[in-house]
Amino acid sequence: MIAVDCNGADGGPAVVAEGARRSGEQVLLFGPAAELTGHEHVVDAPVRILGDEEPVRGVRSKPEASIVQAAKAVADGRAEALVSAGSTGPTLAAATLSIKRLRGVHRPAIAALLPLPTGPALLLDAGANTEVRPEHLVQFAYMGAAFMEAVVGTERPRVGLLSVGSEAGKGTPDVLAARERLEQGDLNFAGNVEGFDLTAGTVDVIVTDGFTGNVALKVAEGASRTVREAIRDRVRSAGPLAMLGGLLIRGPVGRLRAEFDPERTGGALLLGLRRPVVIAHGSFGPDGIAAAVSLARRAVDERMVERTAGALERAGALRSVPAGSVATNG
Amino acid sequence: MIAVDCNGADGGPAVVAEGARRSGEQVLLFGPAAELTGHEHVVDAPVRILGDEEPVRGVRSKPEASIVQAAKAVADGRAEALVSAGSTGPTLAAATLSIKRLRGVHRPAIAALLPLPTGPALLLDAGANTEVRPEHLVQFAYMGAAFMEAVVGTERPRVGLLSVGSEAGKGTPDVLAARERLEQGDLNFAGNVEGFDLTAGTVDVIVTDGFTGNVALKVAEGASRTVREAIRDRVRSAGPLAMLGGLLIRGPVGRLRAEFDPERTGGALLLGLRRPVVIAHGSFGPDGIAAAVSLARRAVDERMVERTAGALERAGALRSVPAGSVATNG
Repeated sequence: MIAVDCNGADGGPAVVAEGARRSGEQVLLFGPAAELTGHEHVVDAPVRILGDEEPVRGVRSKPEASIVQAAKAVADGRAEALVSAGSTGPTLAAATLSIKRLRGVHRPAIAALLPLPTGPALLLDAGANTEVRPEHLVQFAYMGAAFMEAVVGTERPRVGLLSVGSEAGKGTPDVLAARERLEQGDLNFAGNVEGFDLTAGTVDVIVTDGFTGNVALKVAEGASRTVREAIRDRVRSAGPLAMLGGLLIRGPVGRLRAEFDPERTGGALLLGLRRPVVIAHGSFGPDGIAAAVSLARRAVDERMVERTAGALERAGALRSVPAGSVATNG
Repeated sequence: MIAVDCNGADGGPAVVAEGARRSGEQVLLFGPAAELTGHEHVVDAPVRILGDEEPVRGVRSKPEASIVQAAKAVADGRAEALVSAGSTGPTLAAATLSIKRLRGVHRPAIAALLPLPTGPALLLDAGANTEVRPEHLVQFAYMGAAFMEAVVGTERPRVGLLSVGSEAGKGTPDVLAARERLEQGDLNFAGNVEGFDLTAGTVDVIVTDGFTGNVALKVAEGASRTVREAIRDRVRSAGPLAMLGGLLIRGPVGRLRAEFDPERTGGALLLGLRRPVVIAHGSFGPDGIAAAVSLARRAVDERMVERTAGALERAGALRSVPAGSVATNG
């Protein structure tokens, strides 16, 4: 059973519910029952936390909010994973507070699955932690690799640390310290990668702090849109022959666009928690939501959380906690 | 007179010298005289500092290197500005050591002029300082605005601070502190901008630290290339009609590409020094170098340095120095 928060999506609760239905998976829906008629397993939860509220305060003060109830259902074991199409802040806060971090994990990270021509790549942290320490970056690397291996099926994922140059000496002191530790570990570690590498398919996992990662993700989306729009505008204004040319390539370019559409990958994940959490984009239609639910299902079936915990433990990358207290489902 | 370091460009010294000639400006060339025959005002300086040497050590240990001699010529007053097509590190080190910072400037910044469909925008710092304090960001904002106003001719340039959300509370503590100070100043300050805004033409100046700025610049270049290549590949493999379509749009798309070519803007600048310094990209051909020399000339003619110093002083954004010691050409 996957808990789905139906509030907060641009298309409204019914679109989310329809997407959840299309996934074919067992779902438990949280949202306004009045707008979710015709669906099974609905918990009436019309209250939502708005994007401009301080997330932790919002979650604490509104226990009846749909995202809080949905996260609680996962924490209680009524559902195995959480999918939210609402704002990232409240989802992160509700999930961290009730589903909780894996023991020994410093901070959960937002991992964005990038649809690239060369196949999906994972960027983390895409915005959960604007400031990080080297040990956080090290954990992100293992968490990202475990996800790509377990859920996407990438063998020995190549992991790169985002920096300002590929040479070992390039970067902030924190990046250099993380690099040193990652080089000593057992990951398939490619060393530093640069901004160019984000969309080039050079590596499968790109590790960075949540400030740089959030900016990088949005720059990539923005630049891609700027180029597509500029090409379209030029073709349209260049006379009838170019316009005919534009019509002739519309098929393949349209298919390409669909292939690069973030809806295909299902969105972003929160890694480092005790259950899988998927954050679909608020703009997703039913197919994007269905992909998000399937992604959550796959993370459960492939035991992503347990494998992440195992990888962190083997690597000695867990925060020191009392011996024997590392638990994946405590 | 503009000092031009001819070493370090991918095309070799002759390409740089040819570009300098095409600019039509008075130039003083530094490079291997044997490869610069036919040009006037050549200082024989065959030694170069390689990209993998530690820049400050390289500059200190090779006073005969072309970039060191060229920077010294500017510091001595034999030339008014510096253009280099060599590696950024040695150029930054040589320029900072001999041309020196403006009094009261904490750190020089690399300012990249982005060719956008909506007109040029300036991103700084693009990599000189991987770690910054709020007062550095504040200076970058004034330095960038003064450049856009003086050299590009943008009236009251809109300045944005790069962060992870547009709301005032979004960002690292350093970004929040810089925002607070910029809001109190007299810039045309737009508040936070996000990664999407980098290529959207939302603002004229985008201010950030050198780590984020370097990553953002390279992500934008990489994503733009990925999209263009993916479109080309799909059109080529989609059958004869799409291929015909591709041929029909080749004219306008080719012109678009030329318009977005970084060669058009002349590259990046070092801001915060006592003379204008332009860093052309190593891959530039003669036209890119000519644009770089023209940019340096314009910065001299439009008194960019003096106007930057004035703007920083009026804003109270200078590092505290003994009263009366603010000089622009000391």
